[in-house]
Amino acid sequence: MRVSRSRATDDLSAAPIFVLVEPQMGENIGAAARAMLNFGLTGMRIVNPRDGWPNPKAAAMASGASAVIDGARVFGTTDEALGDCHYVLATTARRRELALPVVTPEEAVSALRGRIGDGQRCAVLFGAERSGLSSDDTARADAIVSIPVNPAFASLNLSQAALLVAYEWSKGAGLPAPDNPFAEEPPASRADAARLFEHLEDELDAVGHFYPPEKATMMKRNLRAAIMRAGFTDAEVRSLRGAVKALGRGKPE
Amino acid sequence: MRVSRSRATDDLSAAPIFVLVEPQMGENIGAAARAMLNFGLTGMRIVNPRDGWPNPKAAAMASGASAVIDGARVFGTTDEALGDCHYVLATTARRRELALPVVTPEEAVSALRGRIGDGQRCAVLFGAERSGLSSDDTARADAIVSIPVNPAFASLNLSQAALLVAYEWSKGAGLPAPDNPFAEEPPASRADAARLFEHLEDELDAVGHFYPPEKATMMKRNLRAAIMRAGFTDAEVRSLRGAVKALGRGKPE
Repeated sequence: MRVSRSRATDDLSAAPIFVLVEPQMGENIGAAARAMLNFGLTGMRIVNPRDGWPNPKAAAMASGASAVIDGARVFGTTDEALGDCHYVLATTARRRELALPVVTPEEAVSALRGRIGDGQRCAVLFGAERSGLSSDDTARADAIVSIPVNPAFASLNLSQAALLVAYEWSKGAGLPAPDNPFAEEPPASRADAARLFEHLEDELDAVGHFYPPEKATMMKRNLRAAIMRAGFTDAEVRSLRGAVKALGRGKPE
Repeated sequence: MRVSRSRATDDLSAAPIFVLVEPQMGENIGAAARAMLNFGLTGMRIVNPRDGWPNPKAAAMASGASAVIDGARVFGTTDEALGDCHYVLATTARRRELALPVVTPEEAVSALRGRIGDGQRCAVLFGAERSGLSSDDTARADAIVSIPVNPAFASLNLSQAALLVAYEWSKGAGLPAPDNPFAEEPPASRADAARLFEHLEDELDAVGHFYPPEKATMMKRNLRAAIMRAGFTDAEVRSLRGAVKALGRGKPE
């Protein structure tokens, strides 16, 4: 089954969308746009840019790549930016606290190509210049893309990370997408999966499940990661929400 | 045939030497050093740098990669810089006037690895920021490395070109690759996943969720498939069973 596409600019190209989460300097946003366009990528989303939007410094640095900047969509939260996406990768070092698969850029591109070939909207998350992606943002991804670097000197910046992922993507850009054996039914959108988690969270809050309070954040993060990573289809999300609702309502009087 | 090695710093590592020909800004030399060191490369040679040598701006930009800058060898001409090299690649757009093979970065790395494995000293030439490599310098190479870029926007700078070639080189160089994808946290056993489903089924039975009776079988089958297919880890199964238990128990009296 093909997933219907909306009309936003970044949906037109059969390519991953690069999502910059809370980037700080406009120059770095512009440099990322240039890195992307070098390899033919144009779909950019920006979450909560520190210096607001539009940003003249981003436009100046982007110069020939200003179409990427002009077409960028800005969101207040990572969840909103990923709401219509079906498959999300996070570029970050490995996080031992998260049970996410860790893939190389090559493996990431192979996964992206399969999903996109099935009509799924795919995103790659890039963190802020200094702090990188938070654990919370990383937990929203299906997998981590880790670029193997020299352990004694690992200093890739935002535009370099974007460059390397875009470069890998471009290698097969003219090739037919491989079949994705796992995607007969595409996963539900991130927003629908998130609503399933939130529904579960609300019901669990109501029965006092997240206890003691100091463990609540971690318990919620782990549950969220499990739900978001499961790749439930639309029908499965509906079925599970029905189950959560039934359990929340409890035994008939 | 094994080639004997001299004692220069850039001969110690079994890796290609990056030769910057007439670079202009020190910052770009420093950025190239950082790009190289990210992927474990340390051998740099510089031909006739515009602003002399040493260059404080190069050292400042290199920061953590200053060992590359400190170990760089400076030559007056490209011929001198390549004098002890056995195999040379030129990073540049294709030159129709030169009868040189044109290879991708992947093919270049494959050739380099073979030569270096035979003990040959190999170099990769990078041109000046604006003008790139001259035809004369390019003609000194055995082959051209051409990075396939968007024909409508090709704007790789010196450090980006160095980054991409170094990245390709590093793939076979034994850098710690990310863990085998999907193997870090294996999914729970089928039996444990099945027990999660059965637990959920029991709780849902208790609240009369599977209604009407003629739909119960299909509802259960769909729920089971969603749970079994999700690939939950052991920790996730425990976390979800805790959630099911909490919901089943309902609100505290």
